[in-house]
Amino acid sequence: MSRAPRLIYLPLGGAGEIGMNAYVYGYGQEDAERLILVDIGVTFPNMDTTPGVDLIFADISWLEERRDRLEAIFITHAHEDHVGALGHLWSRLKAPVYARPFTANHAARKMEEQGQDPAHVNVVQPWPERIKAGPFEVAFLPVSHSIPESSGLVIDTPAGRIVHTGDFKLDVTPVLGDPFDRVLWAEVAAAGVKVLTCDSTNIFSPNPGRSEASVGPAIRQLVERAGGMVVATTFASNIARLKTLAEAGRDAGRSVCLLGRAMRRMVEAGVQSGILTDFPKTISPEEAGDIPRDHLMLIVTGSQGERRAASAQLSRGKYMGLSLAEGDLFLFSSKTIPGNERDVLNIVNALSEMGVDVVDDDADLYHVSGHANRPDLAQIHQLMKPGVVVPMHGEHRHLREHVKLAAENGLNGILAPNGTLLDLTGAVPRVAGYVDTGRTYLDGTVQIGALDGVVRDRIRMALNGQVVVSVLIDEADEPMGEPWVEVNGLPEKGASRAPLSEVLEADLDQFLRRADDRTLADDDKLEEAMRRITRQIAQAEIGKRPEVKVIISRLSE
Amino acid sequence: MSRAPRLIYLPLGGAGEIGMNAYVYGYGQEDAERLILVDIGVTFPNMDTTPGVDLIFADISWLEERRDRLEAIFITHAHEDHVGALGHLWSRLKAPVYARPFTANHAARKMEEQGQDPAHVNVVQPWPERIKAGPFEVAFLPVSHSIPESSGLVIDTPAGRIVHTGDFKLDVTPVLGDPFDRVLWAEVAAAGVKVLTCDSTNIFSPNPGRSEASVGPAIRQLVERAGGMVVATTFASNIARLKTLAEAGRDAGRSVCLLGRAMRRMVEAGVQSGILTDFPKTISPEEAGDIPRDHLMLIVTGSQGERRAASAQLSRGKYMGLSLAEGDLFLFSSKTIPGNERDVLNIVNALSEMGVDVVDDDADLYHVSGHANRPDLAQIHQLMKPGVVVPMHGEHRHLREHVKLAAENGLNGILAPNGTLLDLTGAVPRVAGYVDTGRTYLDGTVQIGALDGVVRDRIRMALNGQVVVSVLIDEADEPMGEPWVEVNGLPEKGASRAPLSEVLEADLDQFLRRADDRTLADDDKLEEAMRRITRQIAQAEIGKRPEVKVIISRLSE
Repeated sequence: MSRAPRLIYLPLGGAGEIGMNAYVYGYGQEDAERLILVDIGVTFPNMDTTPGVDLIFADISWLEERRDRLEAIFITHAHEDHVGALGHLWSRLKAPVYARPFTANHAARKMEEQGQDPAHVNVVQPWPERIKAGPFEVAFLPVSHSIPESSGLVIDTPAGRIVHTGDFKLDVTPVLGDPFDRVLWAEVAAAGVKVLTCDSTNIFSPNPGRSEASVGPAIRQLVERAGGMVVATTFASNIARLKTLAEAGRDAGRSVCLLGRAMRRMVEAGVQSGILTDFPKTISPEEAGDIPRDHLMLIVTGSQGERRAASAQLSRGKYMGLSLAEGDLFLFSSKTIPGNERDVLNIVNALSEMGVDVVDDDADLYHVSGHANRPDLAQIHQLMKPGVVVPMHGEHRHLREHVKLAAENGLNGILAPNGTLLDLTGAVPRVAGYVDTGRTYLDGTVQIGALDGVVRDRIRMALNGQVVVSVLIDEADEPMGEPWVEVNGLPEKGASRAPLSEVLEADLDQFLRRADDRTLADDDKLEEAMRRITRQIAQAEIGKRPEVKVIISRLSE
Repeated sequence: MSRAPRLIYLPLGGAGEIGMNAYVYGYGQEDAERLILVDIGVTFPNMDTTPGVDLIFADISWLEERRDRLEAIFITHAHEDHVGALGHLWSRLKAPVYARPFTANHAARKMEEQGQDPAHVNVVQPWPERIKAGPFEVAFLPVSHSIPESSGLVIDTPAGRIVHTGDFKLDVTPVLGDPFDRVLWAEVAAAGVKVLTCDSTNIFSPNPGRSEASVGPAIRQLVERAGGMVVATTFASNIARLKTLAEAGRDAGRSVCLLGRAMRRMVEAGVQSGILTDFPKTISPEEAGDIPRDHLMLIVTGSQGERRAASAQLSRGKYMGLSLAEGDLFLFSSKTIPGNERDVLNIVNALSEMGVDVVDDDADLYHVSGHANRPDLAQIHQLMKPGVVVPMHGEHRHLREHVKLAAENGLNGILAPNGTLLDLTGAVPRVAGYVDTGRTYLDGTVQIGALDGVVRDRIRMALNGQVVVSVLIDEADEPMGEPWVEVNGLPEKGASRAPLSEVLEADLDQFLRRADDRTLADDDKLEEAMRRITRQIAQAEIGKRPEVKVIISRLSE
């Protein structure tokens, strides 16, 4: 084992998906590095792979086992994929948390909601303020994104300076929050940047990104021309957009009402943390009910088609006493994240049935992304001139393409998906090892491992249906009465036109009458035989092989 | 009841989704109309709403009840959403089927696969050949689409001429199959068109559609420049595209191998029906294994990320002895249908991990749609000058927008989603009634109704997990031993750190010991109480309320 200290990087989440960001940096002798964690976010479940799961976190076991070496947790910004797991996982790490005021407001709430002391969240000011964390000195570098107070991190180490961009775009007119400040970033770069850990989300977007300010005029025009009620949805955390929408409503002589808890909470946090001072006056849903619809504008949650959010509820009927009608306008001031298309289109079709005109962002008029596009990333590469570019915040395809972009810019890029432990000490980075990573599911109130089999069992029941077989065996190992069969999630009748459960009961009864003593005396054998028969009969009757649960009750027990 | 005959239209499927097309026309006295059915297709299930389901059909109960009045079934083209349900539903309708040779080839196979006599499928030639079906005379009007031999239908009735477009685009250089023939369509229109029942799929695409021939040069260039193996995927039924891809491979000096059953079957059907005469020579997967990868091109199924298709299998490793390697090129010569994004991206990321370069159609270079865009639809409106435009083949949002387009063109459009019975007899169409429609699921080998609750139960098990409780009651209505609990798809342990099943068993045992005689003697009461307790305890332990199955075995029985 080497005695010389080393600088390491280990993504536990976020480098292999867009979500559940969790990046570890370490400095010190091998296996004795002092560590910091950047971000601790969530990913959202879906019916395909994680039915019934509430939230998904990165598996932090590696870090938990080394938590005595963890100096601090830094949160770059308040998006759920960066701060959402803090309250759930903090007790397994127990390190001080640092964030700027607006982000800290959310982080503290995340802690409180999970019964943790919000005092562990330290509110800090941006560069040039520095936080000392073991061998690291960390400063928050203001940057533009789609939520206020986003920050890159300037992480100074004995081996050199790391710039961890966080999520960012190069917006000099972001409406709200910090504009991209080229002079400041150049100042940071002047001392030399060893490592640029860089957002990869929009690497496949070939044109320069557009400013948040650019959507204002189009939204304003749309709202001005609308006849009935106007309803607009966007990401609740995009307070700049909420402001643009609300101002467009106000200026068109409309009363503005925010619908959806997440949205009201975001605006509150903006006001509390002092970054939101001039948001148009809003009215309550009750007040909105009394206002003529052509004088009303709702700004609502649920741009991704989330079933319980305001958009979906409005598409199904009344929400908070308000409902849409023919001639109203519904604006998606948002893009649809891959995987959410069907949910969003279900809303659009439901609105269509009501006679509501839906405007989405197909024409690129009413939404801009919060991430740097390919030419913007190239600009940052040039500005930072790092010794190495480490792409993060992307699926594998994004990271790989980002490495290519670095090469195009004459820079050294290295592909480091989740679990890749990089040694960044020398001039050339190298892969020093691989760490087992994965996903932790929050299921109800329990954290379970993605490989525990719990979710796999659910998926199997959903795909195959289930049969429960119950059989009673007496003290002499003889079956008592007929077996009892219950079918769950299966067609009632099959090929023989008799109820499947009755066909199964009859055939299992026949089997039991003929079964030899050894089988009847042995739970495992009996269970296995009855499962096999059940599946065979189901296959013949309904063309499916269901999951089978056999319950053997013995009087002797 | 009116004595005068009427002309009716009733979409049972396809007008409210893109899929499971099934359109009924009728002519005659009310409730005695003679009927024809145009198309009988499928929709594909998904994990969100239809886990475990194999295929989805329109509910044809209305037509089945009137099958003595059904004169014929016409199939416009061989896409699954137009012909896929024929074999499964034909025995419920038993009417002669008419299609052109290539389509009939598929239709006959669909019949055979489900044990029906393929002789019921009649092969017909296009316009001017006419098929007499009761009061109707029907001719197949060649039109361009993304599969050979697509046809509109010219349906002559005593009340006037209907043109049912089927799926179409205005492609005069379609590579394979019939080009759009403006003169022919004008000839059809010359006699006057009463009703234009029209494809709505691309109503939101603002620019004129591009020709199939336009993708050839870009594909050719891409394949010529590739270094390693080239793999291309597209819709198996798009034989023109297969030909373009195969020719690009051949001309770049590569041997071409088709992978995937659907693709080989389509090419075979093309050859058998005489429409495909000059497809480049292909080699078998075994032969492909011996060819240097820079001299090889695979054309494979699975452009939508289908898990069992060649693309997905190649992304996971070997398929038919072939596998991808760093430096290979993978081309998606296709678009991703909404809802399939995650499955497709999973493949892209898996290929990225292999070091394979993936090219998709983001830049609109390697794929064109098979449907008429908005300006193309406007052209057809103008050309046909129908008395009324009835939008079909679209979700509600498409149909509604298509009615707006008709109005822009000075035409009368009418919105008729599934179940809307239109009376088209007079100069102005009117809604004559609504028919209950819905979906039928093919589940294994059984057809079940969408509202039967079978799939709902599966979804509940997947979201909530399940607990099976088994209890034994003796002749005196006293519980024997402890209740037995099995948990399925639930975390093993919860708040009390003991196995959930043991916690449940202990608490249910306590309940049984204290339960009064009336409860113990009454299965319903006992079951309800045990279900309630189980859900309460699960909520406290793991924060979830699972599905509960209670099995009570009584010795007295």
